Amino acid sequence: MSELRQNRATKRWVIVAGERARRPDDFKVAEPTKPLPIHDPLCPFCPGNESKTPAEVLALRDPSSSANGPGWQLRVVPNKFPALRPVGDLERREEHDFFRKMDGLGVHEVIIESPRHNESIGTMTYRKVEQIMLIYRDRYIQLGTDPRFQLVTIFRNQGQRAGTSLAHPHSQLIATPIVPSRTRHMLEEAMRHYDDWGSCVFCDMIREELAAKKRIVLETADFVVFEPFASRVPFETWILPKKHNASFGNISAGETRKCARALRRVLGSMHRLLGDFDYNYHISTAPFKDANESYYHWHISILPRLTTQAGFELGSGIYITVAFPEDTARYLARSVKEGGRGR
Amino acid sequence: MSELRQNRATKRWVIVAGERARRPDDFKVAEPTKPLPIHDPLCPFCPGNESKTPAEVLALRDPSSSANGPGWQLRVVPNKFPALRPVGDLERREEHDFFRKMDGLGVHEVIIESPRHNESIGTMTYRKVEQIMLIYRDRYIQLGTDPRFQLVTIFRNQGQRAGTSLAHPHSQLIATPIVPSRTRHMLEEAMRHYDDWGSCVFCDMIREELAAKKRIVLETADFVVFEPFASRVPFETWILPKKHNASFGNISAGETRKCARALRRVLGSMHRLLGDFDYNYHISTAPFKDANESYYHWHISILPRLTTQAGFELGSGIYITVAFPEDTARYLARSVKEGGRGR
Repeated sequence: MSELRQNRATKRWVIVAGERARRPDDFKVAEPTKPLPIHDPLCPFCPGNESKTPAEVLALRDPSSSANGPGWQLRVVPNKFPALRPVGDLERREEHDFFRKMDGLGVHEVIIESPRHNESIGTMTYRKVEQIMLIYRDRYIQLGTDPRFQLVTIFRNQGQRAGTSLAHPHSQLIATPIVPSRTRHMLEEAMRHYDDWGSCVFCDMIREELAAKKRIVLETADFVVFEPFASRVPFETWILPKKHNASFGNISAGETRKCARALRRVLGSMHRLLGDFDYNYHISTAPFKDANESYYHWHISILPRLTTQAGFELGSGIYITVAFPEDTARYLARSVKEGGRGR
Repeated sequence: MSELRQNRATKRWVIVAGERARRPDDFKVAEPTKPLPIHDPLCPFCPGNESKTPAEVLALRDPSSSANGPGWQLRVVPNKFPALRPVGDLERREEHDFFRKMDGLGVHEVIIESPRHNESIGTMTYRKVEQIMLIYRDRYIQLGTDPRFQLVTIFRNQGQRAGTSLAHPHSQLIATPIVPSRTRHMLEEAMRHYDDWGSCVFCDMIREELAAKKRIVLETADFVVFEPFASRVPFETWILPKKHNASFGNISAGETRKCARALRRVLGSMHRLLGDFDYNYHISTAPFKDANESYYHWHISILPRLTTQAGFELGSGIYITVAFPEDTARYLARSVKEGGRGR
């Protein structure tokens, strides 16, 4: 039997298609026939090819090494083909008083996570993932000081189905001079919930998920990881801080490390269960000016790309998912528990 | 130089990435190494395999043939693995007063467009596409008489990248007991525009696109086809009736035929330019109860799947497109003109 379910934070409905439902162990992806090498001389992100990227904005490197040369552990560089650039002005113009546009003003950076070509978040050391997430935080805070930007979206595309052709481990961020429409919708719904109930809808969701105990993947002292009641895709997974906090930019270095450990632990288990699967994740956060609001709550959403979004999703906005999150969350939680807390 | 552009109807921003921009003729897809056969004995939609689908709801067939046997030109059947079924009730329930859900009540049908396995909308005869669209209209009107349904979404998935594994030409429809979130957002924005300007935002868009003459693909006496100013993907194309009309269910048989001819003409040109490309299209329409509103305007959106939606799009709702619609529209319009008006 199918169900229509509503996500109380986004107010979006999904269809859990009972007739098509697959078992959690049906989603495993075939391992690649040829594993990636640790170094690829043709990869623009591999050590020795630093000249193939724009000059680094920031790098973690050996004290004896030089900028834009080998000897680094992590590099942040502007995207060579940026969607937005930090030039132009903020004015919104209209052609015919109708077609509204503005300069493509913003920042688009790549976080090259590791010198090793064949690593991935789920297989890196815990310390390495902490390092990456601390860099996310540094860049987020730094870009927040530029009054031209409203919000920074940090995201990761893993694999071709997730929209990347570069296998080398990397994340990206884009600072925009506008509040993105998806964020605006979520803020509006969260504000409405706050007006109705006097509480943050995400805080309520955490409390209800912990009480229901049906979709929890991992609970630590500071973070909770679950598959949302109205998951859009199989194994969709959210990571939320237990403590109310609207903005990713507000968290401490210690919290950042703990979040990184939860992310590493969950993605490691997903790889054990799903093989070499493709996914996106992104950090949802309030715009800079709303960083201390009572109604929003930053979080990470992991969206595995195990199925393909088709015409109905594009036309209606309603996702059809072929797995019950109760089933996939139980399956994933068992693996997370078996995997232990990591080094 | 990149631009941020806003679609005035949806209020969603897109980024046209100037640095990554490709030329219109860069999007051509390789032809399949092995063309499809006209008949595939293993295909559940091919003649002779009628027993592999649920019993037909409606069929256009030779008078001498029997239901659920060969001798048909078009069949409408329930989806064998439906997302929704016409059973259950409309009550919305909550677990823990928080997790909102309802029965998966609705209708999910497949329109098997042709007995020929290897046809596609862009290569069928004009008469055939008229027949298909008249069936869309019949089913839309029929399902609108069921008070349990708010809206019917008609859509087509062409090719694997568009989310279908069945090559046989078919469309689908889903009747939902809720107004989908994407439709609700569009209705709200259109209503706000109406309150501000006293006019339908889509009527305004048609007038402004015709005046701008930059993105028009085809103009006929009754329909206008253009690539939106804030196109989300390369070659995104909208077909709108010139006459204001909120609901697809309101159009006459004559208008339906004219719309089908415009659709066939444009998709035929897209195939000439883009090869065996994958795409989705869907019909956006007002909910049944709002069928005569002044602020909404039904239309068809064609979304080619030439690029892949990645983490930034999922996280922000902002699409990054790598083509200027002015360029792709001009390229497409030339081919549409050369292709002529069809038989």
